[in-house]
Amino acid sequence: MASQGKSLAATSPPQGTQHVCDGLLLVVNENSGVAEIWLARPARGNAMHAPVWEHLPRVLDNVLQNNPNVRCVLIAGEGKHFCTGIDVEHLQTLGKKGAPRSDVDGARQREALRRDIMKMQDAFTAFERLRCPVVAAIHGACVGGAIDLVTAVDIRLCTKDARFCVKEVDVGLAADVGTLQRLPYIVGHGVAAELCLTAREFDGNEAVRHGLCSRAFDDSESLLTHARALCASLAAKSPIAVSGTKRVLLRVRDSGSVADNLEFVATWNSAQLITEDVAETFHASRAKRPPHFKNLLSKL
Amino acid sequence: MASQGKSLAATSPPQGTQHVCDGLLLVVNENSGVAEIWLARPARGNAMHAPVWEHLPRVLDNVLQNNPNVRCVLIAGEGKHFCTGIDVEHLQTLGKKGAPRSDVDGARQREALRRDIMKMQDAFTAFERLRCPVVAAIHGACVGGAIDLVTAVDIRLCTKDARFCVKEVDVGLAADVGTLQRLPYIVGHGVAAELCLTAREFDGNEAVRHGLCSRAFDDSESLLTHARALCASLAAKSPIAVSGTKRVLLRVRDSGSVADNLEFVATWNSAQLITEDVAETFHASRAKRPPHFKNLLSKL
Amino acid sequence: MASQGKSLAATSPPQGTQHVCDGLLLVVNENSGVAEIWLARPARGNAMHAPVWEHLPRVLDNVLQNNPNVRCVLIAGEGKHFCTGIDVEHLQTLGKKGAPRSDVDGARQREALRRDIMKMQDAFTAFERLRCPVVAAIHGACVGGAIDLVTAVDIRLCTKDARFCVKEVDVGLAADVGTLQRLPYIVGHGVAAELCLTAREFDGNEAVRHGLCSRAFDDSESLLTHARALCASLAAKSPIAVSGTKRVLLRVRDSGSVADNLEFVATWNSAQLITEDVAETFHASRAKRPPHFKNLLSKL
Amino acid sequence: MASQGKSLAATSPPQGTQHVCDGLLLVVNENSGVAEIWLARPARGNAMHAPVWEHLPRVLDNVLQNNPNVRCVLIAGEGKHFCTGIDVEHLQTLGKKGAPRSDVDGARQREALRRDIMKMQDAFTAFERLRCPVVAAIHGACVGGAIDLVTAVDIRLCTKDARFCVKEVDVGLAADVGTLQRLPYIVGHGVAAELCLTAREFDGNEAVRHGLCSRAFDDSESLLTHARALCASLAAKSPIAVSGTKRVLLRVRDSGSVADNLEFVATWNSAQLITEDVAETFHASRAKRPPHFKNLLSKL
Amino acid sequence: MASQGKSLAATSPPQGTQHVCDGLLLVVNENSGVAEIWLARPARGNAMHAPVWEHLPRVLDNVLQNNPNVRCVLIAGEGKHFCTGIDVEHLQTLGKKGAPRSDVDGARQREALRRDIMKMQDAFTAFERLRCPVVAAIHGACVGGAIDLVTAVDIRLCTKDARFCVKEVDVGLAADVGTLQRLPYIVGHGVAAELCLTAREFDGNEAVRHGLCSRAFDDSESLLTHARALCASLAAKSPIAVSGTKRVLLRVRDSGSVADNLEFVATWNSAQLITEDVAETFHASRAKRPPHFKNLLSKL
Amino acid sequence: MASQGKSLAATSPPQGTQHVCDGLLLVVNENSGVAEIWLARPARGNAMHAPVWEHLPRVLDNVLQNNPNVRCVLIAGEGKHFCTGIDVEHLQTLGKKGAPRSDVDGARQREALRRDIMKMQDAFTAFERLRCPVVAAIHGACVGGAIDLVTAVDIRLCTKDARFCVKEVDVGLAADVGTLQRLPYIVGHGVAAELCLTAREFDGNEAVRHGLCSRAFDDSESLLTHARALCASLAAKSPIAVSGTKRVLLRVRDSGSVADNLEFVATWNSAQLITEDVAETFHASRAKRPPHFKNLLSKL
Repeated sequence: MASQGKSLAATSPPQGTQHVCDGLLLVVNENSGVAEIWLARPARGNAMHAPVWEHLPRVLDNVLQNNPNVRCVLIAGEGKHFCTGIDVEHLQTLGKKGAPRSDVDGARQREALRRDIMKMQDAFTAFERLRCPVVAAIHGACVGGAIDLVTAVDIRLCTKDARFCVKEVDVGLAADVGTLQRLPYIVGHGVAAELCLTAREFDGNEAVRHGLCSRAFDDSESLLTHARALCASLAAKSPIAVSGTKRVLLRVRDSGSVADNLEFVATWNSAQLITEDVAETFHASRAKRPPHFKNLLSKL
Repeated sequence: MASQGKSLAATSPPQGTQHVCDGLLLVVNENSGVAEIWLARPARGNAMHAPVWEHLPRVLDNVLQNNPNVRCVLIAGEGKHFCTGIDVEHLQTLGKKGAPRSDVDGARQREALRRDIMKMQDAFTAFERLRCPVVAAIHGACVGGAIDLVTAVDIRLCTKDARFCVKEVDVGLAADVGTLQRLPYIVGHGVAAELCLTAREFDGNEAVRHGLCSRAFDDSESLLTHARALCASLAAKSPIAVSGTKRVLLRVRDSGSVADNLEFVATWNSAQLITEDVAETFHASRAKRPPHFKNLLSKL
Repeated sequence: MASQGKSLAATSPPQGTQHVCDGLLLVVNENSGVAEIWLARPARGNAMHAPVWEHLPRVLDNVLQNNPNVRCVLIAGEGKHFCTGIDVEHLQTLGKKGAPRSDVDGARQREALRRDIMKMQDAFTAFERLRCPVVAAIHGACVGGAIDLVTAVDIRLCTKDARFCVKEVDVGLAADVGTLQRLPYIVGHGVAAELCLTAREFDGNEAVRHGLCSRAFDDSESLLTHARALCASLAAKSPIAVSGTKRVLLRVRDSGSVADNLEFVATWNSAQLITEDVAETFHASRAKRPPHFKNLLSKL
Repeated sequence: MASQGKSLAATSPPQGTQHVCDGLLLVVNENSGVAEIWLARPARGNAMHAPVWEHLPRVLDNVLQNNPNVRCVLIAGEGKHFCTGIDVEHLQTLGKKGAPRSDVDGARQREALRRDIMKMQDAFTAFERLRCPVVAAIHGACVGGAIDLVTAVDIRLCTKDARFCVKEVDVGLAADVGTLQRLPYIVGHGVAAELCLTAREFDGNEAVRHGLCSRAFDDSESLLTHARALCASLAAKSPIAVSGTKRVLLRVRDSGSVADNLEFVATWNSAQLITEDVAETFHASRAKRPPHFKNLLSKL
Repeated sequence: MASQGKSLAATSPPQGTQHVCDGLLLVVNENSGVAEIWLARPARGNAMHAPVWEHLPRVLDNVLQNNPNVRCVLIAGEGKHFCTGIDVEHLQTLGKKGAPRSDVDGARQREALRRDIMKMQDAFTAFERLRCPVVAAIHGACVGGAIDLVTAVDIRLCTKDARFCVKEVDVGLAADVGTLQRLPYIVGHGVAAELCLTAREFDGNEAVRHGLCSRAFDDSESLLTHARALCASLAAKSPIAVSGTKRVLLRVRDSGSVADNLEFVATWNSAQLITEDVAETFHASRAKRPPHFKNLLSKL
Repeated sequence: MASQGKSLAATSPPQGTQHVCDGLLLVVNENSGVAEIWLARPARGNAMHAPVWEHLPRVLDNVLQNNPNVRCVLIAGEGKHFCTGIDVEHLQTLGKKGAPRSDVDGARQREALRRDIMKMQDAFTAFERLRCPVVAAIHGACVGGAIDLVTAVDIRLCTKDARFCVKEVDVGLAADVGTLQRLPYIVGHGVAAELCLTAREFDGNEAVRHGLCSRAFDDSESLLTHARALCASLAAKSPIAVSGTKRVLLRVRDSGSVADNLEFVATWNSAQLITEDVAETFHASRAKRPPHFKNLLSKL
């Protein structure tokens, strides 16, 4: 059908794609300053298996962080779903590492497991380490580990019929790749408790109502169109201003009182306020042209 | 009238009730894993007087905490109201203890008062200490001390015409049994400030809009039906997963940065992740039957 | 036109106005206990220039804090807008102070700039230092520095067509006079990130949806009427209760765990709970008359 | 031998002793206001076994906390040693509870173990909950769990030849009953790291040098004489002042900035400063007699 | 006697003294960059009465903070003692304000008292707000409120026979002007608890052993000589480096983790590192002359 | 001379050395479980230049962290000094990157500088990330950046004549590679302030008195002998216990209250307590042989 065809088209990665690993594609458009990361195992609902957990932080920390021409990142899922969570086989591998064995000390097994979990957490924290903003375009299922992922990016857009679910309690786990830590700051502790304890599904409209997503679109095509436009617009803004705003907001969430954070931003801006980007803003405004801002960091 | 009759029926405790003290009933259904606590002085709007303050934490800390068959708790109010707050006479007794007297040192009086307040606070914090989740079913009035109570439980459901009011400023007090400390994390600091400073009433629909309640029902009968179904569903989930989720969420609210809390949950799950409940989930799913989970703790 | 005339009338300061400085008016009604601060450079959209930054904290810390008859403060903007932000010339002066010069050491310049920013931040933090609540009545534009201002007051009301914008990234800056520090506690971190990174406009209805404003009115006349009624009502309440509630809520936002804050309020109330205001509440209620409360502090 | 005889005499509990449980004695002198707790399994070096872990917090929380005539507590060990740590059999029981079994879910076992550890921690935290100060008189061995204990009291005195050892790493554990949490605040993080990682012994003189003990005495007789004199002197001071000082210092250690803690003590003292104890101090000083202060709380 | 004569001479303020108020002298030497504040009511042991509490913060915040030529401050006491604490009459005035009266509401009195205490605390916190370091030269008595004072400065020197005493518990109070908040960070929590709970005297040698003072001198003459030399040396250092070091150390004490504070200083130094003072250091070193640094801020 | 000869011999790396980069040597003894890192530019006083800053974190994070046979690390300096700080040329390169240029935006330069500083900080934080303990053997000069380094390791030993100096203020900087953040936790805030503000030298005996070093030796030969013995002893202990102790102590320093940290260690040990290392301790003790513990992690 036409609408389904549209929808599928809309959730396919664009041309110029690099194959990062099985399940992960990368598209860098240096002209627009926007990079796109695609979760790409559509036959498995983009479930995240070992290669994705390994390569995603490398793409973020090594490739995108060091490419000064990248000023905004979009993450999306190929096919019918954004992401159905951690791959079951990957979960089972983890489970086996910690299961009681007669020949291995349990404490050592659990220490190894603790380090594995922290490494998985770190894969998503890389979105926060990235100097530039990240936008997630969410359609279809966004379940379990996918919630961990999207709570670590800066802005979330979705389709109205996207289906969200903090599914972990229903597989016998406390969520541990970031959802329990980040969701309460986004939706409040009451809503977070209900969603995490019940593991009930909610759709894109409810996600917007709770402040988890900024806007819900009718279909995945229009979602992707708007998400790309948003990314292009963020990439065109002063990277001094955008990366400063991202970093300061994360610090407010993570440490200290308002007084502490006021001093932090004052100190930050004593270094950052005097930038040619402010002048460029005025000149462009007077000349009735869009401002043009240089990259934050030079080519290494 | 029929509808009133229904409503009264809906807010009466079920059979098998134990009389804890004047104003407090307890119903433990070990089969379903759900215990119900009923505020039960309907003639006084379930206002909380000294016996309730004394027995409620004992029920939570001694009876329910130690009964491994209890996996979810429901709290509701008998009669027309959930709870109209602290009993006026109890408040006056407190007041007299601190009033200036020529024969008692004021500082010692105030120290005794401080300890009394902390004991009352502790009565509600017992909901957070409980390993299993607590659901409040709120209809009619939920005023003053009742707001302190419901902000300490995990999930709140209500009727659309429930009337909430953070009433303390209107009796010349700053709320001090927990509302000022917990409400801002649930509804945000702007909404909390307005509700606490103005002491205005708001209904169940607005409570849902602010994230204070998860859902509002048409009448108290359907509220109670759904609340019980929710409790039964929570009690049927893996208690390893549910109690871990509750504890980790409370810690996120109370201490440290996201990084700190990520390490905490990693450490937690290095101990808790390898549980038969995960396997049970898979097996049940494959056999298309509901999973069955053992209690968290064994009978003491 | 009639409606426009009404609107203009509604956003003009009342009689009895004192001229604080260019751009700032003050009206103290000791009978009602309400003081009104008016941003008053309507020809410049009430943009805040040097005199306003200098005199606003003085009015709050010296005049209003020390007038025991003032129990609530209203802040509003004269003319078509609440406030269009920091005056461009003031921003340019700041910019020049930090711009590279061959004859001045850059580190010393930046240290001076850091102190200037902290002084501007402190001008708005004075709203939080004030013992009594502050209500902002917002119509027209509320942009850039105006968001910094309104996030520092206690309650925000607005018109439905008010236009809000966290504009800083679009002039090449990270907001640094308080928005990034306070907005996330009011609207959640997800909504805050989207509003601050995109710098998009949103109206009064959306502001209410996010919890930034408590209520949106059809026009500025009805906004002002309701804002004044709210202020009169807050001023008539027990100042022991109101100032305690304000202070305790700010402390909850800024420091410690719920347990820490429970002990703080217990200690506070061991000093504050025994007040004649509680008795007055009961007597008035019995006599079916409004309660009358004395000022918090006596005339100095 | 004479010196050994003296030493044994010095470390025997006084007359009027109550038998709390096997291994624990209590002596309450209501006249002097001093209670003495004696670890009393001298044949086992006062190693702490299950009855001690169970009864110690009860003595502190129920008996001593509620006896208003108790104003200072001394803890000492009968026989040759203060305390040689956790009883080996108790440790083995704990170990067995967590050891892998084919018939019990490991996660449930570990959750039970986590609760057991927290209960043991809580037994020592009861020293901090007690309103009045606690002095430890340490001679002979103070090893492992005994370090956990003494870091939770307020003042430590010792003999010069006392032998301290944070022994846990040498039995394959990270100390978990409080030493790692409290010792760094007492001796600094560098000294704490060396003592905890190496598990080396150090004597009373070194303990004084690091600030762990306040003073080291030549033998246990003179230790006990001085410790009792110190307790009598603390019990004779204003309990308003002493219990306030204890509580405020613990809060400083545990939460917030200096600014937060300054406001806490200001709030505390606004309730506590106006006490007849200040007047009594002046009167006694003028009359050249010792001041006499009433108990903090009245008989319950 | 000669030595006594010397000692008295040594603790008299130098020429060029300004009379700030009864009990407070100020000497500003713009050439050396050192200002001296003298507590100067020798007949009353420099006990701090109302005028000192009022004028000391003004001198620090208004006079010294704004004089760019001041780069280090010395505080000393005239006559036989550094300072014997809060003046008894001032304490009694405070006491009267809070004492029960039939005609005044107790809660309002206590609120006024709370504000008075916070104002006194703020008088000493002004030492921390000052951009440049403060050195205290302590001889004779340093008791009660004087300990509050000296724990708020940056470096303490003393005579060997100086007598320190955290005296508050012995007058029925918990110390509340800063000692309980700052002393534990300086001497550790164990030493602080013993000194504050026992209120025992200790001399200059012990103060050095605990890290409270940096060095103890034989007599007050040599104390003053060395304190002045230290101040001159601090005033000659790069004010960029010195004021940054002071501020960063205070922030480390007051907020956040090491990771947070590492980012803070990185941000600070991204603004401050590029200063001509580094070049001046190299040039002076090469030319074998002392470096010369400009003031931190220009004349206002 | 003989003694000098000895001294030089003592501070030379042992056989089996790998050349990591110019200035950095590595010796891994898999049998003893001890790795030695040598700062090795003796002709430049082991001043740290770009290659050291780049390779040191790689050695720690990639080589040592991943070699399960490494259980303790020693760091020492070749030649006459432990380390004379950051190489002057490296400092100048940093300075040039931030110096005002007409062709580069200052804010971008300063952002790049901020990232450079954070990268240097991270090089030393790698000592804390390492699972096993690190011991520094300090002789000769330990100045500037070398203090940053040694405050990040776990245990410090030194020669009596070692010369320490927090030198940064004397080159016009606030120390920013970790000293200001870590030193106050080791020596207290009073001592730290004096050492950092004055930049005065102090020797090994004073370093021991302040708790910065654990022990001072007569010469570098005996220092190295004892440091190696300490490392061998740490490497022979249970790695479960040692790495747990290290991690828990760092967390105590960095986050939360004692209550938070008690729960953290309880959770940790619920995963780690049940280890064969405890049994091995008992068996070895009974058999009067040294215990033998397996590595923490298996070969990758």
